[in-house]
Amino acid sequence: MDGSIANDAKTLDVPAVMAEMGRRAKAAAAELAYAPASARDAALRAAAEAIETREAEILAANAKDMDFGREKGLSEAMMDRLLLTAPRVAAMAQGLREVAAQEDPVGRVLEEWTRPNGLHFRKVATPLGVIGVIYESRPNVTADAGGLCLKSGNAAILRGGSESFHSAGAIHACLQEGLRAAGLPADAIQRVPTRDRAAVGEMLTMQGAIDVIIPRGGKGLVGRVQAEARVPVFAHLEGICHVYADAAADPEKARRVILNAKTRRTGICGSAECLLMHRGYAAGQGAATVAMLIDAGVEVRGDAAVQALDPRVVPATDADWGREFLDMIIAAKVVDDVDGAIAHIQRYGSQHTEAVLTEDDAVAERFFARLDSAILLRNASTQFADGGEFGFGAEIGIATGKMHARGPVGAKQLTSFKYLVEGDGTTRP
Amino acid sequence: MDGSIANDAKTLDVPAVMAEMGRRAKAAAAELAYAPASARDAALRAAAEAIETREAEILAANAKDMDFGREKGLSEAMMDRLLLTAPRVAAMAQGLREVAAQEDPVGRVLEEWTRPNGLHFRKVATPLGVIGVIYESRPNVTADAGGLCLKSGNAAILRGGSESFHSAGAIHACLQEGLRAAGLPADAIQRVPTRDRAAVGEMLTMQGAIDVIIPRGGKGLVGRVQAEARVPVFAHLEGICHVYADAAADPEKARRVILNAKTRRTGICGSAECLLMHRGYAAGQGAATVAMLIDAGVEVRGDAAVQALDPRVVPATDADWGREFLDMIIAAKVVDDVDGAIAHIQRYGSQHTEAVLTEDDAVAERFFARLDSAILLRNASTQFADGGEFGFGAEIGIATGKMHARGPVGAKQLTSFKYLVEGDGTTRP
Repeated sequence: MDGSIANDAKTLDVPAVMAEMGRRAKAAAAELAYAPASARDAALRAAAEAIETREAEILAANAKDMDFGREKGLSEAMMDRLLLTAPRVAAMAQGLREVAAQEDPVGRVLEEWTRPNGLHFRKVATPLGVIGVIYESRPNVTADAGGLCLKSGNAAILRGGSESFHSAGAIHACLQEGLRAAGLPADAIQRVPTRDRAAVGEMLTMQGAIDVIIPRGGKGLVGRVQAEARVPVFAHLEGICHVYADAAADPEKARRVILNAKTRRTGICGSAECLLMHRGYAAGQGAATVAMLIDAGVEVRGDAAVQALDPRVVPATDADWGREFLDMIIAAKVVDDVDGAIAHIQRYGSQHTEAVLTEDDAVAERFFARLDSAILLRNASTQFADGGEFGFGAEIGIATGKMHARGPVGAKQLTSFKYLVEGDGTTRP
Repeated sequence: MDGSIANDAKTLDVPAVMAEMGRRAKAAAAELAYAPASARDAALRAAAEAIETREAEILAANAKDMDFGREKGLSEAMMDRLLLTAPRVAAMAQGLREVAAQEDPVGRVLEEWTRPNGLHFRKVATPLGVIGVIYESRPNVTADAGGLCLKSGNAAILRGGSESFHSAGAIHACLQEGLRAAGLPADAIQRVPTRDRAAVGEMLTMQGAIDVIIPRGGKGLVGRVQAEARVPVFAHLEGICHVYADAAADPEKARRVILNAKTRRTGICGSAECLLMHRGYAAGQGAATVAMLIDAGVEVRGDAAVQALDPRVVPATDADWGREFLDMIIAAKVVDDVDGAIAHIQRYGSQHTEAVLTEDDAVAERFFARLDSAILLRNASTQFADGGEFGFGAEIGIATGKMHARGPVGAKQLTSFKYLVEGDGTTRP
């Protein structure tokens, strides 16, 4: 269904191809696990250089993908995501160099202690092993995800969207060139060589070969991965982020944060989708807040109390609570107090990111203690839900599960650990 | 099939019962998540007291289980595991008090930093949520596992073996008495009220309600759980622990550690199942080492080189490598060097625990770097693979997966985290 590319023939034995990729990835991961940071970083820098050197090649591959996208009738937004330009190629190379410059996440001593019997314990960070990344049309994910996996000593199996097939191939060639230049196995970053979707199904069930799957894309992709995967998944399905303006909010700070949380960028998972106002806040500041949003071009869908604040408010329906608009739309509701806000978020939230706007420490503490979203903010915009903004450098995604990785997933979060214990002929009584 | 207990009627709607338990567990978990440590610890101490007060009741319940076990024709080892005595009951109560005395694992600030824009970040430990524990005949697991889950702020759903049905019920009643005494929801520790095995199948697929499953028992149980669970599992299937005696081993320390690793207790997962000897070690110390083991009553199953060391060595077959004997038997092999040992362990190990015996730092470093078992020891016995020996206090099990929890799983390892971020009207540019 995805076109008639030569290496995409339906005769390809996808399960066999994937099994072989899995074996190679495991072998490469075993080597990477003890490769020095200097080699991994050298590979990242060499890959960056290759991307710059082969810019023309990458852009030519991308032109083929753009033609294919046009034929397929992709939306303008999709075509923009697919498009590579000289500055976008340069940004990919720069991203790899920044990852190379990060501290080595592998081998960090996470804890260290000595027992009364003299045994000395170290808990040391290790790579996870093999990471499968399944993404959609943005070709730069090839470089970003491949780079972060390599930085953290993991082998990667990348499966990009069919639209970016040629672009991803050209970028992947640069990553492998970097690996070879640094004396590391090229199999450390492999790319699924077919557009056949059966490959995704294989990846989701390769328990022996893939240690974790990271889906990068829309709700359709993530939902399928979460439902079908037998391999652990780091992901978030939706970012239904709430902002609660408390009675004790500073009005000026509150308006600033609310506007930023909703409008800075509406298409990212950290954008606010629902505004909850304490009735005290609504009485004093509600009208000005709602007017500010509407004047900025936001459609406000409110409950009866919010509708009473401004005639331009659209009545909210039940479907608007817990909805990820990813657009210039916000649901808005008046609640009695912080507990009302907490109850609403527990019912409709997606455990991604929520903000409380208040000068009252007790309210902030209650909000922080009773909610279990991956990220909780006080007097700051939900748009900070981002690995770069956390200071993690690049991120491979944001996770909302409770296991292993949560919040922005950077190179550090792509590690496991082992215990190294030293004695002196020590036996257990 | 498991008897004719009144509350075990086959007419019980197991899926409905389990779904209701899941709902109650989630509600209890939400309350526990912000219950103060003082309340959780008070509940643990009150449960300990209830166990002591109700000793006679617990022993009477256990007597019923012992009758059932005798009828069923359980082995002597199984009967001993099932048996409760006054000292064993006292030990359970003591265990709960020790867990109560541990540092609070919830709310620990795991990391803390400030960004240039003034945003202050805290990464704070949170409970995982709801933990399902599936175990076999040892009734004390009810108290140990329930206590550790409570300590770490998690709700527990306990499913004990059918043999220990009455004992577990009596102990569980004490745990709930403790919860009530401390003003915590009794649903924080629930017990599956039926022997019907369908309950296990339900638990393994309750993704929305159970956050992690911990199986405690033999390979049959753990294998089934790992194969069928859709919920994450903390477990180890086998403890195939290796000891490598290097050419640079101190002979006296080496013999002491080898004897302890194999013979201190043979039935635990940390007991050594395979001895690998550098040919230099074998030449100098091999005969004495093998004789020591055989004299201690160990059957040594060796390759040709080991057979040459002592006429009493039994020839090893292919099935003896990577085998968990859990008995006074050890497989033994001569290897060329540390890389030979590493290759053997990578092929046959279970990523549980391995020890290297050497005075050569470079050899130890290579062994530590190239193997990825949860626990690697130098000059110390594999029998230290135990949460108590690590200083974790009680353990709920040992995990060999790479996700989230690895090695001994104590109260700290039963936590997740969230990010708490504080600003001052901070918006993202």
